[in-house]
Amino acid sequence: MSTILDRLADVIESRKPANGGDPATSYTSKLFAKGDDAILKKIGEEATETVMAAKDARAGADSGKVLYEVADLWFHTLVLLAQFDLKPQQVLDELARREGVSGIEEKASRKESLE
Amino acid sequence: MSTILDRLADVIESRKPANGGDPATSYTSKLFAKGDDAILKKIGEEATETVMAAKDARAGADSGKVLYEVADLWFHTLVLLAQFDLKPQQVLDELARREGVSGIEEKASRKESLE
Amino acid sequence: MSTILDRLADVIESRKPANGGDPATSYTSKLFAKGDDAILKKIGEEATETVMAAKDARAGADSGKVLYEVADLWFHTLVLLAQFDLKPQQVLDELARREGVSGIEEKASRKESLE
Amino acid sequence: MSTILDRLADVIESRKPANGGDPATSYTSKLFAKGDDAILKKIGEEATETVMAAKDARAGADSGKVLYEVADLWFHTLVLLAQFDLKPQQVLDELARREGVSGIEEKASRKESLE
Repeated sequence: MSTILDRLADVIESRKPANGGDPATSYTSKLFAKGDDAILKKIGEEATETVMAAKDARAGADSGKVLYEVADLWFHTLVLLAQFDLKPQQVLDELARREGVSGIEEKASRKESLE
Repeated sequence: MSTILDRLADVIESRKPANGGDPATSYTSKLFAKGDDAILKKIGEEATETVMAAKDARAGADSGKVLYEVADLWFHTLVLLAQFDLKPQQVLDELARREGVSGIEEKASRKESLE
Repeated sequence: MSTILDRLADVIESRKPANGGDPATSYTSKLFAKGDDAILKKIGEEATETVMAAKDARAGADSGKVLYEVADLWFHTLVLLAQFDLKPQQVLDELARREGVSGIEEKASRKESLE
Repeated sequence: MSTILDRLADVIESRKPANGGDPATSYTSKLFAKGDDAILKKIGEEATETVMAAKDARAGADSGKVLYEVADLWFHTLVLLAQFDLKPQQVLDELARREGVSGIEEKASRKESLE
């Protein structure tokens, strides 16, 4: 079973040059080819753009821009996780642990809901 | 059926003062009570801490710190989404759309994988 | 009498398209032509690069990179100040006021030191 | 002769615990006592607050807030420079070099203007 985040992580993993990704045709492969600094620079950039989009939305712009920028920010954190051989599920497990939303319970409830 | 992100979003939603969250006892309620700027400031802060953790990991520190900081960053983006009445699933749908990972296909494959 | 900051501010002011700056040949004119978001995005980006340079310096790289990135960050804050018709001297006056370093005393001591 | 930036740098230098600064009474001494990460975190934070203030000013708020946040950002970059034993004059020299505003010419013109 895989979630969208897992599948995105798989796609991103496949974009690593070591896994056959081509920096000439794939944006993600190019990020990996450039290395840590290019990825980290994007994290800072997308965080700033998220802040700007939120301010714009509060001043009357479409809140869809907030959604779009958060998607950009999450995407680049997924690339960062892959760069450090980490998985989005590990981030979710950490969040679940903190908030008392157990991953084990969650799988159980998911199974039930599909029954 | 709910995923960890959905359940985290529910917990965060319940922390809004308008939904009974208490700023005196809950960190998340306090963020909502302070408003946009407090949340956005955290986005910038956690992005910076993610960059620092990645640099530290590359200089020999535990990469678990990257995981921890990405969890912090995602958590605060979830608070931001709630602040603008947006759902994490909308971010995932946007990411799936971009990467050609269809949410509909995904649900189908999820069912299959549980069969 | 003018300081380097004042003169940089003058050069930057002259780069505004309204003052004859040409976005086709000048980086600064292009930033002004693009507007607020392009300038603010650079503030976020250069702050991130400053953080990265400091981490690199601590891990053994040349601290000159910190200097270079702080210069980039200051430059883009000067562009931002110009965009809002503010002057670097106003920032210095604010800093002097906070730290008890009076601008008036400072001019006095400067005169003395040249005598 | 000293400029406001030089004098601020001197005040900041004197706040280092090694130079007698007391983290119990001075904010700057506390930053130095905490070390690199505390200072870098503030760089990211103040850059974000600068972006927010600019957006607020554009939405109708007082542009004085932009001035205030740029002052905060410059102050913390001065602390960072001190942390790496760098001087604001070195940043100004780098900026002057790039923009063709010579520091040597500048000193000359300053002398003239006081004559």
